[in-house]
Amino acid sequence: MAGTFITFEGGEGAGKSTQIRRLAARLETLGLEVVTTREPGGSPGAEAIREVLLSGKAKALGPLVEATLFAAARIDHVANTIRPALERGAVVLCDRFTDSTRVYQGDGDGVDAKTVAELERIAVDDVRPGLTLILDLPVEVALERIAARRGDENPDRFEGEADAVHRRRREAFLTIAENEPERCAVIDASGDEDTVAGRIWAAVAGRLELPAGTSPAEARHG
Amino acid sequence: MAGTFITFEGGEGAGKSTQIRRLAARLETLGLEVVTTREPGGSPGAEAIREVLLSGKAKALGPLVEATLFAAARIDHVANTIRPALERGAVVLCDRFTDSTRVYQGDGDGVDAKTVAELERIAVDDVRPGLTLILDLPVEVALERIAARRGDENPDRFEGEADAVHRRRREAFLTIAENEPERCAVIDASGDEDTVAGRIWAAVAGRLELPAGTSPAEARHG
Repeated sequence: MAGTFITFEGGEGAGKSTQIRRLAARLETLGLEVVTTREPGGSPGAEAIREVLLSGKAKALGPLVEATLFAAARIDHVANTIRPALERGAVVLCDRFTDSTRVYQGDGDGVDAKTVAELERIAVDDVRPGLTLILDLPVEVALERIAARRGDENPDRFEGEADAVHRRRREAFLTIAENEPERCAVIDASGDEDTVAGRIWAAVAGRLELPAGTSPAEARHG
Repeated sequence: MAGTFITFEGGEGAGKSTQIRRLAARLETLGLEVVTTREPGGSPGAEAIREVLLSGKAKALGPLVEATLFAAARIDHVANTIRPALERGAVVLCDRFTDSTRVYQGDGDGVDAKTVAELERIAVDDVRPGLTLILDLPVEVALERIAARRGDENPDRFEGEADAVHRRRREAFLTIAENEPERCAVIDASGDEDTVAGRIWAAVAGRLELPAGTSPAEARHG
């Protein structure tokens, strides 16, 4: 496909949505079409399934039902949002994708790796990210940011988990990065927004071939 | 597992729900615990997913999303309703199960057989029906019954399909029965309720080992 598919992964509080907005703006200044999207959701059908997933009902249903519902939503999201955008040459920036399912539903007593992989195959087919940015943060820092955010916003249920769970998930994301170094870049998400944005830009510029005439290297020197 | 798992399959208008009620009543007279249930749904979580499936939203989503949502609902249904009932020795009568997914979502341009089989494995694990009754009806008769029912009831969207589709699905159910004769019994569903109930009872009596002291053969002569 002509476009470029970049996913953002990592625990809560890492600043994924802020950094997606910043990267999108920077890529747009290069004249690129940028589509930003998120999971669960990202297309009308997937948003309907998102409601079931985030309502708290799915927690009672257990990780296998959750993983399967995420897969159902992802099929719709890929078919109606991600694939069409990539086919017309856009850069797609997606807030969470398959790695979140691996980590959140595959963790601990969760879904076995074979089933996670099979659901992934069913859901994404050939639409795999070219680059996955794993925003990594010490758990203490993440929990402080989440607490601060709670001042003016209701945390959704995924944020109301115990510290040990956050630690295990961080490790799981880092293990994915270790196992797939060509696809994944671990980004130190501590520090201020500008600093993290600079790290992300370096990873994008160093790894991706953007369309001719829009190379980040050229843009940085222009 | 100690119990007996019987599924009812076939197109619309075949009288599945009526016949399930009658078989349940007859088995209860033998002193058996009978659990009647249905898909999609059959447990609180699965009913929540059922709402998305039957709202008409899922039709726009396409057969692969549908099949995956059915699988998600089925995981919950098996875990919370079917498996516990079988473990305590009940007879479970289920209105539609995996064969309906094979036929409705696997048909024509639908989901490939490999994916249907994989979703089935994920959803049911070892909870496979011991007997599947396929209620078979000429399509003309089925369509007449559906039309009559529409007089006092809104047909759900699966009933609002073209004749050719009904014919293809009937063939698909019969093919399943041919391929798995040990599990499946084709029941001629034409004729009145009593006649069909008699055919079903003969199939159940001929195929199932019911708990000691409750053999249908004994009951028939008692």
